[in-house]
Amino acid sequence: MSERIQEECGLFGVYSDTVCDVAQEVCIGLYALQHRGQESAGIVVNNDGNFRTHKNIGFVSEVCTQDAVKKLGVGKIAVGHVLSAYREKEDRISPQPLVMRYKKGNMCVAHNGAIVNAHQLRSELEVGGAIFQTLCDAELIAYIVASERINCNCVELAVANAINRLQGAYSVVIMTHGKLIAARDPHGFRPLCIGKRGNTYFVASESCALDALHAEFVRDVEPGEVVCINSEGINSIKTHCGGQGAFCAFEYVYFARPDSVINGQSVHMARQKAGEILAQRYPAKADMVCGVPNSGLDAAIGYAAASSIPYGVALIKNRFVGRFADQKKIGNSEYSESVRLNALTSAVKGKRIVLVDDSIVRGNTLARIVKTLKDAGALEVHVRVSSPMFMHPCYFGTSIRNRDELIARRMDKEGIRRHIGADSLGYLESDDLAKLVCDCNMGLCTACFTGEYPVEVPEVEPQSKYDRKLPI
Amino acid sequence: MSERIQEECGLFGVYSDTVCDVAQEVCIGLYALQHRGQESAGIVVNNDGNFRTHKNIGFVSEVCTQDAVKKLGVGKIAVGHVLSAYREKEDRISPQPLVMRYKKGNMCVAHNGAIVNAHQLRSELEVGGAIFQTLCDAELIAYIVASERINCNCVELAVANAINRLQGAYSVVIMTHGKLIAARDPHGFRPLCIGKRGNTYFVASESCALDALHAEFVRDVEPGEVVCINSEGINSIKTHCGGQGAFCAFEYVYFARPDSVINGQSVHMARQKAGEILAQRYPAKADMVCGVPNSGLDAAIGYAAASSIPYGVALIKNRFVGRFADQKKIGNSEYSESVRLNALTSAVKGKRIVLVDDSIVRGNTLARIVKTLKDAGALEVHVRVSSPMFMHPCYFGTSIRNRDELIARRMDKEGIRRHIGADSLGYLESDDLAKLVCDCNMGLCTACFTGEYPVEVPEVEPQSKYDRKLPI
Amino acid sequence: MSERIQEECGLFGVYSDTVCDVAQEVCIGLYALQHRGQESAGIVVNNDGNFRTHKNIGFVSEVCTQDAVKKLGVGKIAVGHVLSAYREKEDRISPQPLVMRYKKGNMCVAHNGAIVNAHQLRSELEVGGAIFQTLCDAELIAYIVASERINCNCVELAVANAINRLQGAYSVVIMTHGKLIAARDPHGFRPLCIGKRGNTYFVASESCALDALHAEFVRDVEPGEVVCINSEGINSIKTHCGGQGAFCAFEYVYFARPDSVINGQSVHMARQKAGEILAQRYPAKADMVCGVPNSGLDAAIGYAAASSIPYGVALIKNRFVGRFADQKKIGNSEYSESVRLNALTSAVKGKRIVLVDDSIVRGNTLARIVKTLKDAGALEVHVRVSSPMFMHPCYFGTSIRNRDELIARRMDKEGIRRHIGADSLGYLESDDLAKLVCDCNMGLCTACFTGEYPVEVPEVEPQSKYDRKLPI
Amino acid sequence: MSERIQEECGLFGVYSDTVCDVAQEVCIGLYALQHRGQESAGIVVNNDGNFRTHKNIGFVSEVCTQDAVKKLGVGKIAVGHVLSAYREKEDRISPQPLVMRYKKGNMCVAHNGAIVNAHQLRSELEVGGAIFQTLCDAELIAYIVASERINCNCVELAVANAINRLQGAYSVVIMTHGKLIAARDPHGFRPLCIGKRGNTYFVASESCALDALHAEFVRDVEPGEVVCINSEGINSIKTHCGGQGAFCAFEYVYFARPDSVINGQSVHMARQKAGEILAQRYPAKADMVCGVPNSGLDAAIGYAAASSIPYGVALIKNRFVGRFADQKKIGNSEYSESVRLNALTSAVKGKRIVLVDDSIVRGNTLARIVKTLKDAGALEVHVRVSSPMFMHPCYFGTSIRNRDELIARRMDKEGIRRHIGADSLGYLESDDLAKLVCDCNMGLCTACFTGEYPVEVPEVEPQSKYDRKLPI
Repeated sequence: MSERIQEECGLFGVYSDTVCDVAQEVCIGLYALQHRGQESAGIVVNNDGNFRTHKNIGFVSEVCTQDAVKKLGVGKIAVGHVLSAYREKEDRISPQPLVMRYKKGNMCVAHNGAIVNAHQLRSELEVGGAIFQTLCDAELIAYIVASERINCNCVELAVANAINRLQGAYSVVIMTHGKLIAARDPHGFRPLCIGKRGNTYFVASESCALDALHAEFVRDVEPGEVVCINSEGINSIKTHCGGQGAFCAFEYVYFARPDSVINGQSVHMARQKAGEILAQRYPAKADMVCGVPNSGLDAAIGYAAASSIPYGVALIKNRFVGRFADQKKIGNSEYSESVRLNALTSAVKGKRIVLVDDSIVRGNTLARIVKTLKDAGALEVHVRVSSPMFMHPCYFGTSIRNRDELIARRMDKEGIRRHIGADSLGYLESDDLAKLVCDCNMGLCTACFTGEYPVEVPEVEPQSKYDRKLPI
Repeated sequence: MSERIQEECGLFGVYSDTVCDVAQEVCIGLYALQHRGQESAGIVVNNDGNFRTHKNIGFVSEVCTQDAVKKLGVGKIAVGHVLSAYREKEDRISPQPLVMRYKKGNMCVAHNGAIVNAHQLRSELEVGGAIFQTLCDAELIAYIVASERINCNCVELAVANAINRLQGAYSVVIMTHGKLIAARDPHGFRPLCIGKRGNTYFVASESCALDALHAEFVRDVEPGEVVCINSEGINSIKTHCGGQGAFCAFEYVYFARPDSVINGQSVHMARQKAGEILAQRYPAKADMVCGVPNSGLDAAIGYAAASSIPYGVALIKNRFVGRFADQKKIGNSEYSESVRLNALTSAVKGKRIVLVDDSIVRGNTLARIVKTLKDAGALEVHVRVSSPMFMHPCYFGTSIRNRDELIARRMDKEGIRRHIGADSLGYLESDDLAKLVCDCNMGLCTACFTGEYPVEVPEVEPQSKYDRKLPI
Repeated sequence: MSERIQEECGLFGVYSDTVCDVAQEVCIGLYALQHRGQESAGIVVNNDGNFRTHKNIGFVSEVCTQDAVKKLGVGKIAVGHVLSAYREKEDRISPQPLVMRYKKGNMCVAHNGAIVNAHQLRSELEVGGAIFQTLCDAELIAYIVASERINCNCVELAVANAINRLQGAYSVVIMTHGKLIAARDPHGFRPLCIGKRGNTYFVASESCALDALHAEFVRDVEPGEVVCINSEGINSIKTHCGGQGAFCAFEYVYFARPDSVINGQSVHMARQKAGEILAQRYPAKADMVCGVPNSGLDAAIGYAAASSIPYGVALIKNRFVGRFADQKKIGNSEYSESVRLNALTSAVKGKRIVLVDDSIVRGNTLARIVKTLKDAGALEVHVRVSSPMFMHPCYFGTSIRNRDELIARRMDKEGIRRHIGADSLGYLESDDLAKLVCDCNMGLCTACFTGEYPVEVPEVEPQSKYDRKLPI
Repeated sequence: MSERIQEECGLFGVYSDTVCDVAQEVCIGLYALQHRGQESAGIVVNNDGNFRTHKNIGFVSEVCTQDAVKKLGVGKIAVGHVLSAYREKEDRISPQPLVMRYKKGNMCVAHNGAIVNAHQLRSELEVGGAIFQTLCDAELIAYIVASERINCNCVELAVANAINRLQGAYSVVIMTHGKLIAARDPHGFRPLCIGKRGNTYFVASESCALDALHAEFVRDVEPGEVVCINSEGINSIKTHCGGQGAFCAFEYVYFARPDSVINGQSVHMARQKAGEILAQRYPAKADMVCGVPNSGLDAAIGYAAASSIPYGVALIKNRFVGRFADQKKIGNSEYSESVRLNALTSAVKGKRIVLVDDSIVRGNTLARIVKTLKDAGALEVHVRVSSPMFMHPCYFGTSIRNRDELIARRMDKEGIRRHIGADSLGYLESDDLAKLVCDCNMGLCTACFTGEYPVEVPEVEPQSKYDRKLPI
């Protein structure tokens, strides 16, 4: 199994002024966001208040078959979700979106991120008689919104009030009978943007999903903003806007798709810039600059351009072996890594190689890759990492192993270099991160590199929640 | 599609004093209770507080495959459920048991029946901020129990307190970390009994499930009783016991399996007795007594014995065409009925036949059957119905079409006779019902025959709930 | 696992003069013939020479879903098949019909029975360069027909010529571009009949399938006859007709559906008559006559009528536990039998019972049933078997265990009585068989009772073929 | 739907001297060869002459699940196959390997390529009484080998003799009780190589599959060679070796994986060289060199290196949208292209781009891509094609549309340039092909570029075979 960091979830919503095949639009959107989560997929279609749901464990291509999408029927509003749930047992996964009935009718919630005070909020609600049928924060958000709705006269206001109680990272898309609501936590940890095509509005985790649907990018949802789309158009509640932004730096480094533009910053350009900075900071005498596919490729191009060392290919990735789900199918055989990634011997033999990757978590995968290249005849392998040293756990929706698994907590840079077998090793500095994202219109969360958390975090580590005895 | 009345759900629970393959025991129990519901099946296994669930739409043989049962692993306690949901669209079905987390940990609920004040209770809870993720009463029961649990110090007491708020028919099986709880509403509308094999306890909707597992029948759960099985054995809370029993007469007439003994009364014997009474009340000059398979067979045997007319077979039922689910697969073709039931021409030709069926709802199916027999050469067909005229809707867990569909509301007996094409027609009288169940230790609910409802019922008809715009 | 004898396969064909939904007609026909085989199902539709196939392992309800039937499209001719393959591993099953291309175009073959000289014919063909992709005799028949077709000028003549080379039991349905052909071996071991509805012709293993489709029974295919249906109507080649018929007696005893009429004889009436003869030959002082469901019920009715002992029910069969396939799903648990069949204690207790079954193979199942009844309180159990003692293996399409498993070869009647725990035991005599089928217009094969085989049989036992190392 | 050229099939075989999990090894091998065919996958395991098969329509990850692979059990020999069947209806696909019984026992055949005299051979065999159950050439090869086996005393000799009769492209892997045989047609159209790990031998379509299994590349199977691996090691029959080689040039251009080495030539290096030649022949004033992912990337790197224009990324491919199968799932929506490939606006805007692709078939896809780039702000798009103009149909296993669909037959280069909207257009010359593959130890088939076919080809076009009325 790979040791990749895994971000949790992609969101997509459509609001059309006419009844049409909104399910198919969501399906396309989810295909474009599939990189954000491959464990489950789901679509809910709202036809005049009737909510029809299709969701299941699996890839979008497995869950959202043409038959399934067709059965969802037509409507004016629809919401979709892809979920990532690294390390989870399959029977613990709760596919989203969640649909429920509350005081004012039906509500559908899809969520991306992590509520850091979830445990406390759940306890409070349980004391009031609440029952929880899943482990997912979408259910908690639904509860909070439903309880706020009692004291205010519209659901978008209830969402805005809920922000007072919910701490952490939460981009959410909520659908009611006649409204599509999109909101981002006050720090804006996770992305969420708005698009438009004719009279149809879209909300999506990333702009690449808008491109897939030939929709125009309108703008990002602001940190703390509650956007409500209904028959009267778009309206916003901005009472929680204006604070200190803390957008997840790892979105630029690894999670997001290179063709997305988030908070004004092209993801590809940020990564290419990271390669350029590495080339300046850690030059190397080498014959070829290569990236670890696919996450290191953009930075490798930047390194090659800045260093004038030719860009090349050292590793071929099997595109039929999915990141996580398919690897399970291969099993824990000794070949699960070599079937995924193979050295391009003819290109590598006798060469000095600069190898760019986006990050190092435990270092074991990278050690195997360096060994593969050397076995294939590479003379030298100079590793360059397009992010700072990764030393602190994430509480905001990223499934990162507990801190003891982070190699950067156990070794210094020289130790890591030896561990991975590289001839030299260079990381970005955390100060460099700001330089990557010159066009970004908000601050970054760099907690995993610096340990400076934008919000108070619990003392227990986040991933432990799945070890508690909980219902599915 | 058949116009059969459809009872909702079968319940099964196991409590073992050692960790063992409780999932397999539940699976066997559900096979034995499959006649109570063929729309979905589910099993939840409790291994020291860890709840693992497998449930889905389909027959037990489709859902509870050996692979699926094996993956549930071992445990000490387990609960299973089969669901009947006549008239429901597939995407409205919520398979049970329901698993949730509440104040004191995990809870699993399975339910059989119908809460008549569900709408009011849901509204009250929604005003308090509750959200509902399903249409099923098990979720409502879980909420009520969870809220009662706040004010008392054990879950069985919370269940007992919940009885004060829940009106209608509800046999429930509830599982927590260390307890298996079985309860029956104060009228005891639906069956529930206790069995034992060695140190393993069982609760089941019908005793036939105990037989399948070689377990000894211990006793029925009493109306209003809350039975709690844990490491200390069986204990009961009987604060709601002692009221007027109202066991569903239709369980004896049609729903239950003939080899079950409920409230001390053999189901087969009740049906055979019905045939005997019909023979006395409505004798016929005939060559052969036959039953409509399978529900009319027991009463036909009684009629034959009492009348000394030979028992015979007039209709062959295709045992590979399931009652509802498989018929959907055949489609609405003109052959859906003839593939299900065929006349035995060689036995029927030139004969005068007494044909016994358990009930008449709309009368269309029976009309087709009588025509089939006459087409096959039957000289006369004398229909005898082993229940009274069915005139009033049921609010207690039986999916009966709205009252306008009941033929007995639109026609008198002679009209019905002509409609079905019979040469004579005889029904039981509602007074006869008590005579069928001489061994039954409690009163009967005969509301669907008499209109006398044991509890106050809502003005809207029960089935309309599915027409509201609700989440799945 | 049950020790039931298992007959192999049901055949169905349609020829319509207009392009229509022939796939749906075949589907209905297969539902009606499902009792003849539950291991696989298949349909081939011929639309102007284009053959579309859908076949798979499973029940008709699992394989021939509405989606699958719809995808087969329309046509004028279609063939269907259900297969029984008792004792086979799933990966050895070859669902039929088989479709192939031969000298003159496409051909589709479905087969019921067993070719006794298959091994020799295969060897001869292999010497000529033939390859075999399955174990099924349909493939062999296709080869023989294809090779005969070279020397004659129409396919129906090739089929007639093939009869010279094929020995054993083979009812076959063959479809070519423009023809539907039905043939029966010269002894007529297995049934096959012709039906008609308007301008649509049907061929079916049993008449019950014609009833399901509202078709009129025309006549049986004669032993040795080759019937050819095409745009010119029905024509026959009768060069192999007129020999000594040898219709499988077990079809009347057990295999066929009671509502079928085969060779002029009602199956139900034959079974009822068997009960009457048993009542005369082996009277008993008893309170109730019961059948082992479902195969003993008809004879029990005959016994009851002839003896004037009341007919009753002693055993309830779970109709959701299929004969073979579902039992695999339950696994080899100790409850696999009790979940399938339960004693009706209230009816049985304190009673002397005549229990009628159709046959005894190994005797173990019947021993368990007798024990179940005695455990339930039966005072005496008098077993009556509606067939003679079963002592010789079948080479004609019945999966019967090797001769050492037949209890009647190892014990005399008294020994069997003790083995099964009965208070008395009575079998039919082989001479009685002719009396059961007074209306039958041909002779019977009684080889399994008498050892007198109508055709020469190989020295090796038939079932051993599956133990050879063969491709799937 | 893409208009990609589609090569047919990947082969894999294992021979181990001990009984082990050969199915898992084949599974890994098929993952590595998945790019050669995504329509079906299959594995046959040989355990001492018992052949167990698992094959189905779908990706390796869908068909060869861990459960399925486990059920195949252990053995010493196994064969696997992935099939490509572009344009085929799903019900016409016959997954391989094919298993059959012939004169000497069981035989398993897997094939890659196309027999050009298949029609004639089939006709001859049909005249001899043969029947064909599939459309696939593997069945034909099995027939020919089986018939040759009659006149010689071992199967490998029969394979060698079969070469006399079989014309066209056929790399085959054949398995018998104790042998694994690999053969390549005398022209060596399709690749096939031998590997070794310890005492385990492998045969594979491409060397990348050997790498995945940590096996050492031994050598290519020679054109015309029949390799036989059994307990005595490797032996060869080379009676058909030594002729004029004609290896498919398109394997280097597009079909094969870049990390494979075929006939001594690295595929990646051939493609990179193509880019270098294009840079010399068709220089461009541009800011960035990009490839159409994934097939144009290697040549783009070569162009960039030779031209000193920076290498960059212009298009992001959605790696979750498979080449063919997944696109069907998306449907023919207007977004099927944009969800697959998106322009990287931030990198493209205001730039002059050299866009390298491997070939142009109809030109429509490339036209859309050029438009996408221009819409994203590209100032100029200079298209370079790393193969010559594609003008002639292929009869050797490549599913290429009929010649009228080839844009190069309808337009000259300038016409094509205008059609695709490029600012300039450059192709390789057919003379250049030899320069790409300096290390290749045999001749190339360049028929699709030059019309010079190495063997006589039929007058009808190859793809028409699927339009004939044939069985599945």
